[in-house]
Amino acid sequence: MKVGQDHYRSIWVEGGAVRIIDQTRLPHEFIVVTLDTLGQAATAIRDMWVRGAPLIGATAAYGVAIAMRDDPSDAGLARACATLIKTRPTAVNLRWALEEMARVLGPLAPSARAGAAMARAAEIADEDVAINAAIGDHGLQIIRAIAGRKGGPVRILTHCNAGWLATVDWGTATAPIYKAHQAGIPLHVWVDETRPRNQGAHLTAWEMAGSGISHALIVDNAGGHLMQHKEVDMVIVGTDRTTARGDVCNKIGTYLKALAAHDNGVPFYVALPSPTIDWHLEDGVAGVPIEERSGDEVSFVQGKLPDGTVTRLRISPEATPAANPAFDVTPARLVTGLITERGVAAPGALAGLFPDHPR
Amino acid sequence: MKVGQDHYRSIWVEGGAVRIIDQTRLPHEFIVVTLDTLGQAATAIRDMWVRGAPLIGATAAYGVAIAMRDDPSDAGLARACATLIKTRPTAVNLRWALEEMARVLGPLAPSARAGAAMARAAEIADEDVAINAAIGDHGLQIIRAIAGRKGGPVRILTHCNAGWLATVDWGTATAPIYKAHQAGIPLHVWVDETRPRNQGAHLTAWEMAGSGISHALIVDNAGGHLMQHKEVDMVIVGTDRTTARGDVCNKIGTYLKALAAHDNGVPFYVALPSPTIDWHLEDGVAGVPIEERSGDEVSFVQGKLPDGTVTRLRISPEATPAANPAFDVTPARLVTGLITERGVAAPGALAGLFPDHPR
Repeated sequence: MKVGQDHYRSIWVEGGAVRIIDQTRLPHEFIVVTLDTLGQAATAIRDMWVRGAPLIGATAAYGVAIAMRDDPSDAGLARACATLIKTRPTAVNLRWALEEMARVLGPLAPSARAGAAMARAAEIADEDVAINAAIGDHGLQIIRAIAGRKGGPVRILTHCNAGWLATVDWGTATAPIYKAHQAGIPLHVWVDETRPRNQGAHLTAWEMAGSGISHALIVDNAGGHLMQHKEVDMVIVGTDRTTARGDVCNKIGTYLKALAAHDNGVPFYVALPSPTIDWHLEDGVAGVPIEERSGDEVSFVQGKLPDGTVTRLRISPEATPAANPAFDVTPARLVTGLITERGVAAPGALAGLFPDHPR
Repeated sequence: MKVGQDHYRSIWVEGGAVRIIDQTRLPHEFIVVTLDTLGQAATAIRDMWVRGAPLIGATAAYGVAIAMRDDPSDAGLARACATLIKTRPTAVNLRWALEEMARVLGPLAPSARAGAAMARAAEIADEDVAINAAIGDHGLQIIRAIAGRKGGPVRILTHCNAGWLATVDWGTATAPIYKAHQAGIPLHVWVDETRPRNQGAHLTAWEMAGSGISHALIVDNAGGHLMQHKEVDMVIVGTDRTTARGDVCNKIGTYLKALAAHDNGVPFYVALPSPTIDWHLEDGVAGVPIEERSGDEVSFVQGKLPDGTVTRLRISPEATPAANPAFDVTPARLVTGLITERGVAAPGALAGLFPDHPR
């Protein structure tokens, strides 16, 4: 989508070099980074220069391709996959992309692997763009129906960043929003700041401002109150992993918004590309391992000083430890619909859209 | 309670001067401020140097007393009450304390008002301490019962700061915690950071650390996940205003925690001194006006730089506006019990504890 007057994807190849945006510097600085080595690709994922399930998958695919330029042997391929799989344990797209690269590259002669890997990574990126555009088209119909029933803008609450920055383009939760905005439907987006890493305040707000979509930043605590007072027409979030029955693992705090939506009759939608579905798992609360990240993400907040310096502040006493579960699971019973590239399904009906699914 | 080796209240008189702690500087700096004028007392409340319903009430009472030293006329009394009532529209204790001061001082000769005002303000402060100690004793029985049913520490989640800093001493939500800690019951307190003003990270964490109570800071998003995974045995929060039927107006985000507690069978308690009850109101969602505070509280976060400077950072793009409702209302149906100075009541039974209530 747009950055100033230019169109960007979140990962792209320029003169043979793989480039990304260092998303840890947004919204204050727009910095493009070239990934030259496997180690850099792993760091980019682990340290969240790139984040979001689809973009993690694409970056992992390009990471394998970069590694093949240095060492295209069987050992090199195994090492690349082993290095990258460890960077983010929750992301099912990461595993999917690495398995796909191993499947394509394994049978090839080592000399053919670097070229084939770059080509397959580019296809994975293009497939993600096509998937998200389709999610946008299906979600647009939901927004259009709400707009038809009420006056004024359709007010959409979203959590974290499932925007174009989290995918290769369009985003997942934001694809319907961008499509509706392009279709001329008046919108207002409530942007959860999404502590601890503030991806809403840093990234979703930056995306909305960049696209000229009416929006307001709110604290994660505010959504329930807004729903009680009929200030929210729908919720759309993304997901890192959705189980076969429709339990949704997403950024910590999603479950609280789903509870509030359910309590107030607000439709709660989840936008998901099908590679995010874990067909091997039913019960997400019991079955999805939740990444516990550093307590420093809770004890410190990053932002910009009046002089323009981007730095971080400690908010709590030094004697206070912090706990930091990074995701939670929203049970399927709280989900109105799952917006996929093949259409919208009630949670229990997800398999019907994917009769060809792997299980 | 304790600050280092000394015992403090949150407001006290020393050599005739009214003193408070500037709570906006905690946990990074411990600064005592002397209130010399009505304007300073109003600023202390409005700018949240003092906050928390009971402490706001006590500060308002002392604010009237300070004003009486300068102008004890009927006009001076009216002006003091009019100035102070405007500082925080949601706080019912503020109105209660000002009405009480006007009731006591109105019949007196102006020359008698300054002394009588200081005496009545001191009584109001002492009454608050006694009320909170009683809340602590009643809440202790609940914690003791949970401790008797399970092994390991009783894990209590709290939101915002309803601690001794929010009252004159003991706190409301924290009074049972301090009493249980003093009784030797093992505890672990989950401290919601409580955006936007981070009273949990700044104040509750500081209180817990100061008293040596095991605790961990969490983001406001985390509580639902912890409850899903049986990591929370009970929730205790305070309230700024409780309706006759038990709807609870408290810091924004309380409602989301109550929903999660209800969804997971975790008991949800509200600690409240009876002056916080608004007997004139039943439906809190429809009837309590919610203070909308500056969006800057959302767009900026205060904390400490590595060099020790306390400052604030911008977290969001400058083009992004923010909305900032400061409170929400938790419907009585989500509340397990209301812990008052007279005992614990189910929401619908609150009036039974207070047959002498004003309506």
